[in-house]
Amino acid sequence: MGPHFRQATIIGVGLIGASLAGFMKSKGMVDSVVGVGRSKDNLEVALKAGYIDRYTHDQRKGVAGSDLVVLCCPVGLFESVARDIKPYLDDRAIVTDVGSVKGSLVGKLDEIFYLKARFVGAHPIAGGEKSGAEAARLDLFQGARCIITPTRKTDLEALDAISDIWEATGARVERMDPDDHDKVFALVSHLPHVAAYAMVDALADMDGGQKAINYAAGGFKDFTRIAASHPDMWRDICLLNGPNILKALDSYQESLWKLRDLIDKGDGENLAAVFDRARTIRKKIG
Amino acid sequence: MGPHFRQATIIGVGLIGASLAGFMKSKGMVDSVVGVGRSKDNLEVALKAGYIDRYTHDQRKGVAGSDLVVLCCPVGLFESVARDIKPYLDDRAIVTDVGSVKGSLVGKLDEIFYLKARFVGAHPIAGGEKSGAEAARLDLFQGARCIITPTRKTDLEALDAISDIWEATGARVERMDPDDHDKVFALVSHLPHVAAYAMVDALADMDGGQKAINYAAGGFKDFTRIAASHPDMWRDICLLNGPNILKALDSYQESLWKLRDLIDKGDGENLAAVFDRARTIRKKIG
Repeated sequence: MGPHFRQATIIGVGLIGASLAGFMKSKGMVDSVVGVGRSKDNLEVALKAGYIDRYTHDQRKGVAGSDLVVLCCPVGLFESVARDIKPYLDDRAIVTDVGSVKGSLVGKLDEIFYLKARFVGAHPIAGGEKSGAEAARLDLFQGARCIITPTRKTDLEALDAISDIWEATGARVERMDPDDHDKVFALVSHLPHVAAYAMVDALADMDGGQKAINYAAGGFKDFTRIAASHPDMWRDICLLNGPNILKALDSYQESLWKLRDLIDKGDGENLAAVFDRARTIRKKIG
Repeated sequence: MGPHFRQATIIGVGLIGASLAGFMKSKGMVDSVVGVGRSKDNLEVALKAGYIDRYTHDQRKGVAGSDLVVLCCPVGLFESVARDIKPYLDDRAIVTDVGSVKGSLVGKLDEIFYLKARFVGAHPIAGGEKSGAEAARLDLFQGARCIITPTRKTDLEALDAISDIWEATGARVERMDPDDHDKVFALVSHLPHVAAYAMVDALADMDGGQKAINYAAGGFKDFTRIAASHPDMWRDICLLNGPNILKALDSYQESLWKLRDLIDKGDGENLAAVFDRARTIRKKIG
């Protein structure tokens, strides 16, 4: 028998929040779901689809009586939302999140909820460029990875419950230290997104760039698909994981300079060697 | 009635060459196809699949008696192959290519074949990371763009014939000046590939990079898919279109520096603005 909750509050009923809520309801893991958000249109979509049972724009009212609260709003709001809802939470309510940044944010949330509610950090690696409840899918997390970031303060029962929810969705649950999480995802997620945004930005400003974009099937399209992701989410990630992203960016710039130099010198042999090693590594990922 | 050839020689029976040959044979546009290449295994695959009727490792023997010759080997070999086969070509044979670089290479080939054969430069924007005759598809060019780069020296009858072939494959044929072609594709194809290679290269060298690659579903995978492309092909492109690629790289580095600076300063407003503009542009491509 899996975890069961009386009432779950989803703060930010976007792609991830709506999909999680919809999944939990479909499996009877929760009796009732309250959606909290700013866009009435989006909340209506979630309500009509049955992902939530009711909604409110007032997060304090939204969390009252819930034994589970999931922070699915932009990570930049987590701290303020946490401070704001804390007095209105049921004692020992489980609070979790789906944010792309962990690091010191987890410790802050541990502190804010200390002795009141039980916080467990989580990050499901799913979704993509689409956003909003209309894009939600109950199988969104099937086969995806979900990173959970317990700390020494994390309540073990809450940790198990959250792990069980994610495993039930079909995700492969993995535990990571919050700081390791941010180092790793700076490399494999945050840096590529910044690089994709920079690529589109550069083209937009180059002579003939806008015209060239018409011929985008040749590599540019693939490369920049992730630049269609939500700007606010990525702003928050850059602000909250800045130091790790800067380190990754510096490494990337070094590699670009190395290649620039080889191209400038016409060093075909070393160019082919770099490309060949990269291809070997990339092919392992599949 | 479309173009028709007695015998076509495909020099380099890779993904593009094999697909084109297979298509032309399937439509009766050519009576017989000779494949020329170095890998016996690959040529055998093409033979068994019916893309070619016979093969040879000797390019001089391969072009004898052909009224159409298609250069599908790495662009870095075009000049030497052209000089080598010239004396063995039938007078007024049509020679064309499928290379990713045009620019001054087209003028060189015009010169080499002058008064002997009729050269027409072409570049079908198709294929991707897969290579070899085994990946060939007769519908590979359906809906793809094919750029043709005539010069003042280009024979008009040959130009029509080559355009007709590509249109028959379902490609949208477009004419471009060879130098414009190289400027445009430096931006939308060559730069993104170099950037993807640099991303994989950087990760491979970073502390924890190789371990992080295990979590590659979060953006890195999309961004670097094109790094699985053929190293030799990309070495040649970098060598032959160096100046344009360097210009594009410099623009790209500028954008990366701009973003680095905004991240360093924690300037959320301008970060969101850059990301938002990029998303708008990228969404137009679809």
